[in-house]
Amino acid sequence: MNYRILGIDPGLTRCGFGVIETGSSRKVTLVDVGVLRTDPSDAIADRLTALDSQLGELIGRLSPDALAVEQVFAQHNVRTVTGTAQAAGVAMVSARRCGIIVQTHTPSEVKAAVTGHGRAPKEQVQEMVRRILNLTARPQPADAADALALAIAHAWRRGTTTNPAAPQTAAQRAWAQASAQAQRAAGRSAIGPRSR
Amino acid sequence: MNYRILGIDPGLTRCGFGVIETGSSRKVTLVDVGVLRTDPSDAIADRLTALDSQLGELIGRLSPDALAVEQVFAQHNVRTVTGTAQAAGVAMVSARRCGIIVQTHTPSEVKAAVTGHGRAPKEQVQEMVRRILNLTARPQPADAADALALAIAHAWRRGTTTNPAAPQTAAQRAWAQASAQAQRAAGRSAIGPRSR
Repeated sequence: MNYRILGIDPGLTRCGFGVIETGSSRKVTLVDVGVLRTDPSDAIADRLTALDSQLGELIGRLSPDALAVEQVFAQHNVRTVTGTAQAAGVAMVSARRCGIIVQTHTPSEVKAAVTGHGRAPKEQVQEMVRRILNLTARPQPADAADALALAIAHAWRRGTTTNPAAPQTAAQRAWAQASAQAQRAAGRSAIGPRSR
Repeated sequence: MNYRILGIDPGLTRCGFGVIETGSSRKVTLVDVGVLRTDPSDAIADRLTALDSQLGELIGRLSPDALAVEQVFAQHNVRTVTGTAQAAGVAMVSARRCGIIVQTHTPSEVKAAVTGHGRAPKEQVQEMVRRILNLTARPQPADAADALALAIAHAWRRGTTTNPAAPQTAAQRAWAQASAQAQRAAGRSAIGPRSR
């Protein structure tokens, strides 16, 4: 039984998303990848609402079990951090409203999971994403590749974190998947059809 | 016909809210004031979702025509800016989903509107909020008073901004109010009852 992970590289102008599936092994396969966009000339409230709506559609269409989102640090880029943090927040609420598990990962956790070291350059992360998912080319733009790296890191870190959704045995995994599905079903009945 | 404004001083641990009504004059009256709280021991995704839910309840109960939210600047407090920005983002999306007009105001715009100068100390802002709303004591905690100051600033700045919802004549005001109500009705039918 497969576990589907939605990775989000948060942003307002470009919000990368990548969906992968993983099973009981470390094997991961690509489901979908792309970028959500909002119009920079719109008011911030309208851009966030447009992103919320696109994320709701994406979650409804692809039914992920978990959301992996990049942890936003204020010191990284002061000019864009507000919009990035808000996009991440909207994604987390979109997912939780549907009963989906949410976990944040730092950039260095993602780099370490995908390349083996936490300070790997962006190009190396993108090349490893290509190889791991057996793609003919690196996903473009970089935001999309970064979202896939987040999803892969989430898949591979599940057994090593204190996340209650990080089962280590086949039985624990089966339980967690059943639990996630029950949560999703509950979320679905509370908010109406997920294809809203 | 009165115009109801919800002011939000965004935060995760304490999110101040203040609702006022204004008519055709500069007179403003208090409708409700308080603080929404989320549990600091919860995961960020769950705190934002709890805030989203409380804001939805508040908007459903008080039916504001406009949301006035403080504009978040990354350089102000790097340690808490991510959570503050995310709380503001969640509030903006909550309001826009209900078809409510959203406008951000900088702290100095709020201080200038309420006290007459943009660098007024916090105590002076709170004392002016007390006097303007004819209250016996300053609203506590400070987050609640700040939210009321935002709502008052929004009421008094409506005629001086380029916001399309900032009418200057009685006819323009009537049109804007009808438009806001139509927008709200549309939002309501699109997302179900506002008391969700």
